[in-house]
Amino acid sequence: MSKIHPFTGQPSEDLFTWENAERQIFTNDDVKGVVKNVLVGPQDDAPNFIIRFFQVPVGGSTFDHAHPHEHGILILHGKAQIEIENKKFDLAPYDSVFVSGNDRHQIINVGETSLGFICVIPLEAGES
Amino acid sequence: MSKIHPFTGQPSEDLFTWENAERQIFTNDDVKGVVKNVLVGPQDDAPNFIIRFFQVPVGGSTFDHAHPHEHGILILHGKAQIEIENKKFDLAPYDSVFVSGNDRHQIINVGETSLGFICVIPLEAGES
Repeated sequence: MSKIHPFTGQPSEDLFTWENAERQIFTNDDVKGVVKNVLVGPQDDAPNFIIRFFQVPVGGSTFDHAHPHEHGILILHGKAQIEIENKKFDLAPYDSVFVSGNDRHQIINVGETSLGFICVIPLEAGES
Repeated sequence: MSKIHPFTGQPSEDLFTWENAERQIFTNDDVKGVVKNVLVGPQDDAPNFIIRFFQVPVGGSTFDHAHPHEHGILILHGKAQIEIENKKFDLAPYDSVFVSGNDRHQIINVGETSLGFICVIPLEAGES
């Protein structure tokens, strides 16, 4: 069944939330304060892919890791640096990135505001 | 291989373009002026999904159609109305939508500026 997730956040207050969207705040030291919101995914019985919105606080970063599944990324706000297999690229709003499966990658907030980006993964990745 | 698509547009001038991203401007009467940009997809050898950015001019709309594959949608700018199986929903920036396979759907720009949104489809949909 089709489903709408109205946005219930307040970007001017750095709040990004949606109705009926799975939300997770990471507390591990290395990714502390990173927030993930599932915009389309298992909650909708989406059969093939998951669209997540990540918010990374000032000075924060995502996991430095590699895995078999790919990422499709679109920066929405803030300034990022992405490191892929030891190469660094600066990213600004609307830049998009394809991260190949098994390429080691990390996204770092290098700006003075929070960083927001979309990250799509295949459903088969087994995470949301 | 991982790949970056730097944004080369100018949002203040309503120009949304990316480096090395497939771009198509529709000319059919019913979707005239709609622009599709492939942000992540076949051009990257992405194996599972395609992320497209659509721009719909003032007064314009996307196809009114149904197909077996699903959509994952995120509004980025402008005001939209989506009609799904004869029900209408108003959409604003950051609202997300899961459109089930085979549900008839159309997105209409009901604002006074251009409408921009992300639409993800599975690779197997056979279109980019």
